[in-house]
Amino acid sequence: MQKFDKNKLLLTSSLAESLYNDFAKDMPIYDYHCHISAKDIYEDRRFVSLSDLWLRADHYKWRLMRANGIEEEYISGNADSKQKFLAFASCLDKAIGNPVCTWCNMELDKYFGIDQHLHSSNAEEIWDRCNKFLADNELTPSKILCDSKVQVIGTTDNPTDSLEYHKRLGAECDFPKVLPTFRPDNIINIQSDDWLDNICMLEQVTGVEIDGLGGLCEALSKRMDYFDTVGCRLSDHGMGKIPCVYASLNEIDSIVKARLVGREIGYENCQKVETYLNFWCGEQYHKRNWVWQIHYGCLRNPNTKGYKRLGKDSGFDCILANGGKQGLVSLLDSLAIENSLPKMIIYSLNPNDNAFLDCLIGSFQGENGGGIQHGSAWWFGDNKDGIQAQLTSLAHNGLLGNFVGMLTDSRSFLSYVRHDYFRRILCSTLAEWVESGEFESRLDIVGNIVKGICFDNAKNFFGG
Amino acid sequence: MQKFDKNKLLLTSSLAESLYNDFAKDMPIYDYHCHISAKDIYEDRRFVSLSDLWLRADHYKWRLMRANGIEEEYISGNADSKQKFLAFASCLDKAIGNPVCTWCNMELDKYFGIDQHLHSSNAEEIWDRCNKFLADNELTPSKILCDSKVQVIGTTDNPTDSLEYHKRLGAECDFPKVLPTFRPDNIINIQSDDWLDNICMLEQVTGVEIDGLGGLCEALSKRMDYFDTVGCRLSDHGMGKIPCVYASLNEIDSIVKARLVGREIGYENCQKVETYLNFWCGEQYHKRNWVWQIHYGCLRNPNTKGYKRLGKDSGFDCILANGGKQGLVSLLDSLAIENSLPKMIIYSLNPNDNAFLDCLIGSFQGENGGGIQHGSAWWFGDNKDGIQAQLTSLAHNGLLGNFVGMLTDSRSFLSYVRHDYFRRILCSTLAEWVESGEFESRLDIVGNIVKGICFDNAKNFFGG
Amino acid sequence: MQKFDKNKLLLTSSLAESLYNDFAKDMPIYDYHCHISAKDIYEDRRFVSLSDLWLRADHYKWRLMRANGIEEEYISGNADSKQKFLAFASCLDKAIGNPVCTWCNMELDKYFGIDQHLHSSNAEEIWDRCNKFLADNELTPSKILCDSKVQVIGTTDNPTDSLEYHKRLGAECDFPKVLPTFRPDNIINIQSDDWLDNICMLEQVTGVEIDGLGGLCEALSKRMDYFDTVGCRLSDHGMGKIPCVYASLNEIDSIVKARLVGREIGYENCQKVETYLNFWCGEQYHKRNWVWQIHYGCLRNPNTKGYKRLGKDSGFDCILANGGKQGLVSLLDSLAIENSLPKMIIYSLNPNDNAFLDCLIGSFQGENGGGIQHGSAWWFGDNKDGIQAQLTSLAHNGLLGNFVGMLTDSRSFLSYVRHDYFRRILCSTLAEWVESGEFESRLDIVGNIVKGICFDNAKNFFGG
Repeated sequence: MQKFDKNKLLLTSSLAESLYNDFAKDMPIYDYHCHISAKDIYEDRRFVSLSDLWLRADHYKWRLMRANGIEEEYISGNADSKQKFLAFASCLDKAIGNPVCTWCNMELDKYFGIDQHLHSSNAEEIWDRCNKFLADNELTPSKILCDSKVQVIGTTDNPTDSLEYHKRLGAECDFPKVLPTFRPDNIINIQSDDWLDNICMLEQVTGVEIDGLGGLCEALSKRMDYFDTVGCRLSDHGMGKIPCVYASLNEIDSIVKARLVGREIGYENCQKVETYLNFWCGEQYHKRNWVWQIHYGCLRNPNTKGYKRLGKDSGFDCILANGGKQGLVSLLDSLAIENSLPKMIIYSLNPNDNAFLDCLIGSFQGENGGGIQHGSAWWFGDNKDGIQAQLTSLAHNGLLGNFVGMLTDSRSFLSYVRHDYFRRILCSTLAEWVESGEFESRLDIVGNIVKGICFDNAKNFFGG
Repeated sequence: MQKFDKNKLLLTSSLAESLYNDFAKDMPIYDYHCHISAKDIYEDRRFVSLSDLWLRADHYKWRLMRANGIEEEYISGNADSKQKFLAFASCLDKAIGNPVCTWCNMELDKYFGIDQHLHSSNAEEIWDRCNKFLADNELTPSKILCDSKVQVIGTTDNPTDSLEYHKRLGAECDFPKVLPTFRPDNIINIQSDDWLDNICMLEQVTGVEIDGLGGLCEALSKRMDYFDTVGCRLSDHGMGKIPCVYASLNEIDSIVKARLVGREIGYENCQKVETYLNFWCGEQYHKRNWVWQIHYGCLRNPNTKGYKRLGKDSGFDCILANGGKQGLVSLLDSLAIENSLPKMIIYSLNPNDNAFLDCLIGSFQGENGGGIQHGSAWWFGDNKDGIQAQLTSLAHNGLLGNFVGMLTDSRSFLSYVRHDYFRRILCSTLAEWVESGEFESRLDIVGNIVKGICFDNAKNFFGG
Repeated sequence: MQKFDKNKLLLTSSLAESLYNDFAKDMPIYDYHCHISAKDIYEDRRFVSLSDLWLRADHYKWRLMRANGIEEEYISGNADSKQKFLAFASCLDKAIGNPVCTWCNMELDKYFGIDQHLHSSNAEEIWDRCNKFLADNELTPSKILCDSKVQVIGTTDNPTDSLEYHKRLGAECDFPKVLPTFRPDNIINIQSDDWLDNICMLEQVTGVEIDGLGGLCEALSKRMDYFDTVGCRLSDHGMGKIPCVYASLNEIDSIVKARLVGREIGYENCQKVETYLNFWCGEQYHKRNWVWQIHYGCLRNPNTKGYKRLGKDSGFDCILANGGKQGLVSLLDSLAIENSLPKMIIYSLNPNDNAFLDCLIGSFQGENGGGIQHGSAWWFGDNKDGIQAQLTSLAHNGLLGNFVGMLTDSRSFLSYVRHDYFRRILCSTLAEWVESGEFESRLDIVGNIVKGICFDNAKNFFGG
C-alpha cells in the first residue's frame, strides 16, 4: 500500500520546503470567508459518520460522482451511507488532478491519522477506521478549529439573521472569534422569486415600513448598524454579471414601488435597481469602514431540471463566461468620484479575468490607500493551477506581499486543510521566483511575505 | 548530424517514461474522428511521393510556408514537387515550438525510418531517401493503419453520402472497423450558398419531398436511419457561434419555406432555424443512442480574398473569439428538460473556454449518466500547451480518468503519430501530479488511467 | 547581504545559459518602438539623481507605491526626492514576482555597478551610492545607448511634430539611428476633447484647409510624406476597441464636417469615421512600404477622479476586456481585398487574445509575403509569464524564427535592460523545446533563431 506522504506534497523545491516548514506551516488561520454555521460552532455538535461529514452537502463531491455515472440515489438520494461512501471512493481511482482527491487525503491524514490515498480497493477499510475513530474520539467543531489554529471565522449571513449564535459565542467563548458577514443578495436581487418574502422579513426585524427605495435603504442601513454591533466588518455580494444600467433616483423608486406591489418590472428595470443598490451599499460600507467582498462571474443553475429536482447549491452551477466587466469599472469609478470607495476584495469566477482584474484594481489603489484586493482563486478555480494563476497575475501587476490570502469558502469544518493546500502552492510559487533570481533570496524578507499572506496581512487588513 | 531521438521525446521525468513505455505506447488506437477517405482505405492506394503525402492538402503546412513569405506557387500552386518540399523544409529551420515540426520528425521516423530532424540542409537527402523508400516499399493505408494499431476509424460524412465504401469495407475487411459519422452542417447551415443544392440532393437520396420543416426533418431522419444501418454511432456539428434564437414551430416552418423558394431570410431567421435544428438533432441522436460531437468557435475564412482564390480548408480559418456560449448553455438545458440529452463530446476552438466548458459539462453530467465529454484540444489547439491545458482543466473540474482521449482530425494517414504525441504529453502531465503527491503513486491505478485515456474509455463510450 | 547574481537570472537550464551567453547577450538592440525623446538624445543631458531617472515619470512604479498605500505626496507629489525613493524601495520588500522589482535590480547592476537587491534596509546606502555615481560619472543618453548597443531607436511622434531633433541627429550623429514613428491617434480619435485644436495645428503645419474628409486625408498624407523624408518607416495606432462601423464616403464626410464646426456627433458616428480612417491609413502605409503597428485593448483612465487629478499616463489605465476583435478581422480583410495590406505588427493588451491573434495573422500571411507580426507582450503583459505566453502562442501557430522580438516601449533610458530580461526568457523558452526533443538541438540552427529574434529579424523587417 502506497502511503500518502505529506512531507513534500506540492512542494517543488528544497527552498519551497524551507519556506513552508519555517514560515507557513505553523501560522494561525484567519478564515475571513466561509459558510459554516455559527450555531454548529456554538453547539459544538459531535460528528459521528464520515458520510455525514463528507457527502451530506458537498456539491464538489457530488459533481465528481455524477461525472462517473453514479445514480443520484447514491449521491444526494436515500441510499445507505456506506454505499454512498464506497460509490464516492470509486471515483477517486480516476480523479487524478482533481483537488477534491488531494483534499480528501489531506483531511483523512490530518483529522483521522490515515496516511493512505483513498481509492476503491481500501475504501471499506478506511470507512471502518474513520467511523471507529469517530466513535472513539470527540471530533467536534471546537477540536477541529483548535487543531487548525483558526483564530477568526467570518460566516456568511442574511441581513435578517438574528446573529443569536454569534452573540452567544462572543459572550461565552474566547476562541476563535466568530464574526458575521453582511450578505444582502436576497434583498438586492430584486427579481428573485422570494424577494417579497425577504422584504417582509426585513420589515419585521427592523420595524421599518418598506414602501419604496427610501424605506428599503433605511431598513438595510439599520441592519448594517446591527451587524456592526455584533462585530461585523465585512460584507459580501454575489453576482453573475455586474449590473450597469443607470437611472434617476425617482425612476428607481418607481421601479421598487412597482415591484413591492407585485408588478412585473422586467430585466432592464431590475438592472437599474441593482446598479443603484450596489453603489449605495458601497457608500455605506465605506462609511462604516467595512471591507466589501464582491464575488462575480457565476452562472447559477444553468441546468433547470437539476435545479428543480434538488434546489440551489446542489452542484449545478457554472462560470458565467461574460461577467459584465463594464459594470465593475463603473462601480469603482463612481464610488471613487464620491470619495466613497471602501476597502474591497474582488473575486471573479472566470480565470480569464485575472489580468484585467489586477490592472483595474491597480488603477484605483490610490483612491483608498491600497485597500483593494484581488481575491484568492475560488470555487471552480480553487485548484493548483487556479491558485498559481491568481498569485502570478497579482504578483505581476500588483503587490503580492500585501495579499490577504486564502479563505475556505466551505460549508465543512474539515476544509481547513485547504489553507494548507494553498500555503504549499504559495511557497512553491515564491520559491521559483527566488530561484530564478527575479527576487531577493534573503529568507527574512521572503519569509515575511509568506507569513503575511498566510495570516498577518488579513489580520491587519480586517483590523485585527 | 543530430539525431531525432524519440526515446525521451516530450517525456519530462522518469515516471513519465515508465507510464509511456509500460501503459501508453503499445495501446491500439480508436480514432473516432478524422477526415480520411473510406474510398482510399478500401482501394488501399499506394503513396508514391512525399510531396503528395505531405503537401498536397495540408493547410497546417501551408500556413507555415505563408508565414515564411514563400510564394503561393510553391504552396498550393503548380511548382515542382521537389521544389515545394525544399521550400517547406526551409521553414522548419525557424519553426521551433510549432507542432508541425515535431510531427514531421515523428512521421519520418515512424513510417520512413529516418532518425534526423528535417531542415534545409538535409532536405535534399531526406527527399531522396523518402522517395526511394516509397519506390521500394508498399506504403499504403492498410500498412499504415496496421503499423499504427488503428482498430476503429470514424470518418466524417455528408447526410447524402452513399457510404458505399463503408459498406464494402464492412463486408470485406475485418480490420480496422471503418464507421461513418453523420455531419449535417451543409443542411443545418440554412444560409450557406449551396443549401438549395444540398436540399435537392437530400430529396433525391431519400425520396422525401422537402417543402417545409416537416419534410426537412423527415428526410434527415431517414438518413440517420440509413447511417445507423451502416454502423454509424456518432454525429458531428461544426459551428462558429452556437445559435440561440427561439421561435415557434410555425415561424420556423415559414422561414424554411421562404428559403426553399429562394427568398432572402436574413441572419436572425437563419439563427432561429439553426437553433431549432440543433435541438431537434439532439433529440434524434439521443433516441438512437448516438454520441453527438459539437465543434464550435471557428471563424471560417476571415480572409475573403484568400478564400475566393483557393476555396475552403486552404489555411484561412481562425478562432472565433466569442463563440456564443449562451447558445450552448441553452441547448444542453433544453435537451435535459426533455430528457433527451444525448451522449456528447464538446470541443471549443478557443482555449479560453476550457474552464467554462468543464464547469458547464459538470452541471449536466447527472442528466445522462456522466455521458458528456470535453473534447481533446483541437486544430489550432493541438499542440503541447493546448493539450496540457485541456487535460489540466478537465482534471481540475471533471473526472479525467473517464476521458475518451485523442482523435486525429486529419486528412492524412501519417497523422497517426499525433496519438503518440498526445500520449507522451498525457504521461508527462499525469506523472507531474503523481510526483507532487497530489495523486496516488500506485502504478496499477495510474496505469489504468493511462490505458483508459489511450483506448479503453473510447471503446466503452462508443459501445465497442 | 545577498548579492544580485545576474549570471543565471531567469535562465532555467544549462542550455538556456549557453544560448544566452553565446547568441543573445552581445547582440545589438533594434529598439523599434519607444517613447524616449529625440531632444533628450540630441541634447545628451546628464542625469543627476536616481529619483529623477526612476520616479519622475514612471507610472509602473507609481502603481506599486499606490498598491502599498503610500500617499500621493510621495508618488507624483512634492515630497523630497530621497523620501520618495525610500518610499518606493519599501515597496520592493513585498514586490516578489513583479517585473519592476527585477528591472530595478538589473538597472542598478548594469548602469550603477550595484550588485545588491534593493529593499528598505539598504535603500539609504543605495541612494547614496547611486547619487555619488551620478556625481562622479557622466551618465547620459549617449553613454547608456552605447553601453546598451542600441543601433536604432524608433520614437513615437505626433503628425504635427516638427521632427527637428530627428533631423539634427540624422545630420550630426552616426549612432544610433533615431527614426520617427507616425502616430496619428490624436487626429483619428475624432471624439477626443482636443481634436479641433489638433486639426488646427495640422492645418498650420501643412497649409491645407481641412473642411471635410478630403482635406483631412490630404493633410495627413502630406505629413506622412514629410515623416518619410526624415526616415520614418513605421506608424503606430493605439486603440481601445478596434472600430467596425461602415458608412459611405459621403456620410463620413458629413460627419467630419459636423465635427469640424463643433457639433456633437455621437459614438456611432465617431466609429464610422475611425473605421474609415484606419482603413485609409492602412492603404497609405502600404503604398509607402511602412510597417503599421496596432496596439489595441487598452481601457484608458477608468478612474475618472485620478485622471482629473493627474492627467493621462499617470498610472490609471487598464486592460479593455473586450477589444473589438471583429474590427480587426474586418480591417485586415478589407485591406487584403484591395491588395493594400501593409506590413504590420499587432499587439493586444489582453493576454487572452494570444491564440486568436496568432490564428488571425496566419490567415493573412499569404497576402503580403509573411509580413504580419504578433507584437511582443506589452505593458501589463511585459513580465515573465506574459512574454512566455506570447512566444509560446506564436511558436505554436506561427513561425517564431521570424519574430522581430522585443521593444522597450518606455520613457526611460534605463529601460534597455528590458531587452536583456526578454532575451533571458527567450533563451529559457527555446531551450525547453530543444530539451524536450520537440526541436533540433544543433546549436547553429537554434542560435540563428536566437540571434534573429534579438536583432537580425527586426533589421530585415524594417529594412535595415
